[in-house]
Amino acid sequence: MRYENLSKAELTILLTELEANYAEAAGKGLKLDMSRGKPSPEQLDLSNGLFDAGKNYVSEDGTDCRNYGGLTGIMEAQNLFAEFMDVPAENVIINGNSSLTVMYDMISRSMTHGVMENPPWCRLEKIKFLCPVPGYDRHFSITEHFGIELIPVPMTETGPAMDIVEKLVSEDASVKGIWCVPKYSNPQGISYSDETVRRFAALQPAAADFRIYWDNAYSVHHFDEEDHDEILNLFHECEKAGHPDLIYIFCSFSKISFAGASISATIASEANLDFIKRLMVPQTIGPDKLNMLRHIDFFGNMAGVKAHMKKHAAILWPKFALVLDKLAQGIGGLGIGTWITPKGGYFISFEAMPGCAKAIIALCKGAGVTMTDAGATYPYRLDPNDSNIRIAPSFPTADELGQAMDLFVLCVKLASVRKLLADV
Amino acid sequence: MRYENLSKAELTILLTELEANYAEAAGKGLKLDMSRGKPSPEQLDLSNGLFDAGKNYVSEDGTDCRNYGGLTGIMEAQNLFAEFMDVPAENVIINGNSSLTVMYDMISRSMTHGVMENPPWCRLEKIKFLCPVPGYDRHFSITEHFGIELIPVPMTETGPAMDIVEKLVSEDASVKGIWCVPKYSNPQGISYSDETVRRFAALQPAAADFRIYWDNAYSVHHFDEEDHDEILNLFHECEKAGHPDLIYIFCSFSKISFAGASISATIASEANLDFIKRLMVPQTIGPDKLNMLRHIDFFGNMAGVKAHMKKHAAILWPKFALVLDKLAQGIGGLGIGTWITPKGGYFISFEAMPGCAKAIIALCKGAGVTMTDAGATYPYRLDPNDSNIRIAPSFPTADELGQAMDLFVLCVKLASVRKLLADV
Repeated sequence: MRYENLSKAELTILLTELEANYAEAAGKGLKLDMSRGKPSPEQLDLSNGLFDAGKNYVSEDGTDCRNYGGLTGIMEAQNLFAEFMDVPAENVIINGNSSLTVMYDMISRSMTHGVMENPPWCRLEKIKFLCPVPGYDRHFSITEHFGIELIPVPMTETGPAMDIVEKLVSEDASVKGIWCVPKYSNPQGISYSDETVRRFAALQPAAADFRIYWDNAYSVHHFDEEDHDEILNLFHECEKAGHPDLIYIFCSFSKISFAGASISATIASEANLDFIKRLMVPQTIGPDKLNMLRHIDFFGNMAGVKAHMKKHAAILWPKFALVLDKLAQGIGGLGIGTWITPKGGYFISFEAMPGCAKAIIALCKGAGVTMTDAGATYPYRLDPNDSNIRIAPSFPTADELGQAMDLFVLCVKLASVRKLLADV
Repeated sequence: MRYENLSKAELTILLTELEANYAEAAGKGLKLDMSRGKPSPEQLDLSNGLFDAGKNYVSEDGTDCRNYGGLTGIMEAQNLFAEFMDVPAENVIINGNSSLTVMYDMISRSMTHGVMENPPWCRLEKIKFLCPVPGYDRHFSITEHFGIELIPVPMTETGPAMDIVEKLVSEDASVKGIWCVPKYSNPQGISYSDETVRRFAALQPAAADFRIYWDNAYSVHHFDEEDHDEILNLFHECEKAGHPDLIYIFCSFSKISFAGASISATIASEANLDFIKRLMVPQTIGPDKLNMLRHIDFFGNMAGVKAHMKKHAAILWPKFALVLDKLAQGIGGLGIGTWITPKGGYFISFEAMPGCAKAIIALCKGAGVTMTDAGATYPYRLDPNDSNIRIAPSFPTADELGQAMDLFVLCVKLASVRKLLADV
C-alpha cells in the first residue's frame, strides 16, 4: 500500500511503530560506513600477487625503472592502457596512483597556463563547468576549488540531457568543460547511449578550449559477463566527427588492483598530449615506473584484466543484490523511493521522496550507519529536491550490509511518514 | 705554467697540439652522459631489498595501505621523516615519489590560491623569486614556468650572499621566495654556515607570503663519516626567531632508495600545514601508502638509513675522487679553471675561464660526451660569465668517467687556448 494513500490516523499509528523500531535499532550500537566507494579487503586480496610482481626492474626498451626518467611512463604500460581503452598507444600518457590527481592537474594547468593557445582561465572573468546530476562529488570539488561555476545538467536514462548540454556548450564561451562518467555512472550506474556519445562527439563548442572530461572509471566493472553495457568509443567518434581535440579521457586501475596504489592514464589527441607533455616537464621527472611494471607483470594484458574483473564481480554482485533485495522487500510498492538496478560500477542511487534525503541520512547516522552526505552528488552539495542518496555497497561485509540496509529501509520509512504527516 | 703567461706563439703551438688530440679523441666514438645527477645501477642495487619489503600491507594504526585514504601518509613514515629532519612528526606530510612535484604543487597552489590569507599570485602584477647561483636548474624551471621573475643571488662559500638576500626580501614585497639547497648545494656542494642559517631565520620579509623553499636534498649524502658537514636546523632556528611560518622544507628518499620510486615529504609549521592540507583535499585521496611501508620495512629507522648511506658513499666517493684527480692532474696550475671539493652531494662545480663554458660543452658533445648544458645552473639558462659547468660523476662507470674526464680536461684546455688567442 502506497504511503500517500494512508490517512493521517494510519500514518500516525505507523509513525509510532516505526519510531519504536528505530529506538530499538539505535540501541544496537552499529558502527558501519557506507559512504565511499572503497573496495573491500577481500577484493584487495585479489591483487596481492602484485607484491611479488615487477621485480625484474628493466622495461622492454631497457629502461632501469628504479631510476629517474620517463615523463609519460613505460611503453608496455602505454600498450596496456591502449588495449584497455581501445586507442593508439601514442595517445596514452601513464600517470601516478590517482586519476583524480590527474584531473586536478588538468584543471590546475588550465587555470595557470590555459588550454593550448587559449588564455589561462585565471585571467578570465568567469569559467563554467557542466555537471551532470546526480554525479561524482570529487569531480565537482575540483572545479569548485578553482572557483569555477558549476552548472547542473540533469541525467537521463541515456546520459546527460544532451539538448541542454548542446545549448549551453554552443552558446556560452565561458563553458569550458563537462564532467562525465560515461559507463556505470557515479552514482546511478547509467551507461551513455550510442546517440549520447555521438552527440558528445558532434558538439560545436563556443569556446575553443572546451573539453569533455571523460572519466571512464568503470569501463570493465560489470557484474555479469552475459549481460553488461557497452558504450561507443568517444575517442574514435570524435575523430570521425572531425573533433579529435574535444576530449580528455581519464582511467585507472584503482578499482582493478589496489585502490590506493594503482596506475592511471590520460588519453587525448596528439595535439592535446603535446601541449600537456610540455606543461608536465617542469612538474615531474616522471611517475613511479616500478608500479607500472608490477601491474604489467601481474595482469599481462586485457585478457588478464578481464579474468581478474570476474573475481571482483563475484564479490561485488552479491552485495549489490542484497541491497537491491532489501530495497525491494522493504520499500517496494510503498511509493516512498525509487532506485536503479545497475549492471556495473560501485553505487546504487536512491531517490527518496522530495525533502527526505537529509532526514534519512541523519536518522541513519543517529543509529550508527554513515551514508554519503545528502547533497554530495550535486554541485555545492545542494540537491534541489533533497532526494538523492548514494549507496556504496562495496566495503562492508554482507552481514554488515544487511544490518545497514535494514536500518536504511527503516529510516526511509520513518522520514517519509514524518514528511507526509508534516505535509498533511 | 699558467696559460695566461704564454706568448701568442706558444699558445698557437699548444692549439695545434690540442686540436690534434681532440681530433683523435673525437674519433673514439665515445657515447657518455654526465648531464644528470642520477644514481648508478650499482647504487640502485643497494635498495633491491625494497622488492621484498612491505608485504604486510597494514600500517601500525591498522590502516589497510592497499586501499584509498591517508591524505598525509602513514604515521610510521611521518615518524621516520621526523627523525630524518629532526622535527616533530606532526609537522610532516608524506608525499609521492618526487619532491620536485611537491615543490611544483606548492608554487602552483600559491599561484591559484595564494599563501594563507594572502591573494593568489596569479592576481598580482609581479612575483619574484631569489635564485642562488649557480643553482639547481629544475628549481628555476618551476618558477620560470609560472612566469615568476627569477633574480639571481650569488653563492658564497657560506651560502647565498645574505646581505643581498636580506635587502631584497625586506624591501621588495613582490619577492615571495628563495630556492635553497642548504647542504651540499647543487652544483657547488656548499653547505650553509650557521650564520647563514641564522640570518635566514631572522629574515623580515616585506611580503607576508614570502617563504624559504628549503630543499634539503642531500642531508645524509656525505662521502666520509669522519669529515662531513652539519648545518643548523632551520626549522628550529625559525621557531627560536619567532618566525615559524617562514619555511617550507622538502626532502625525499630519491637519492637514498630508488630515484624514480621513493617517498618524499613536506615539513612546515602547523599553520602552514593546516593551509596546505586544506588545499590538498580536492587534489588527491592520498599518495601510495604501500611504497611508504616498503621504505619503513627496508630502512627501519635513521640508523638504517645512515648505514645504507655509507654504502652509497663507498660507490660515489671513488668517482668523485677520480674527477677531482683528473682535474688536478690535467688542469691544476694552468689558471684555466677552478673547482670546489665537496664533502657530499651529487655534483662538482667547475668554473672555466669566463666565456668558455659553452665552448667546452660543445667540444665535449662533439666528441660524444654529454655534459649539463652551459648556463643550466643560472635562471633562464643565462650564465653571465659563461663559465659554470656542472659535473655529475654518479652515473657513469669509473672507466667511462675516466674517459669522459680526460676528454673534458682536453676540451677545457682547447677552449681556453682558443679564448686566449681570440683575446690577444
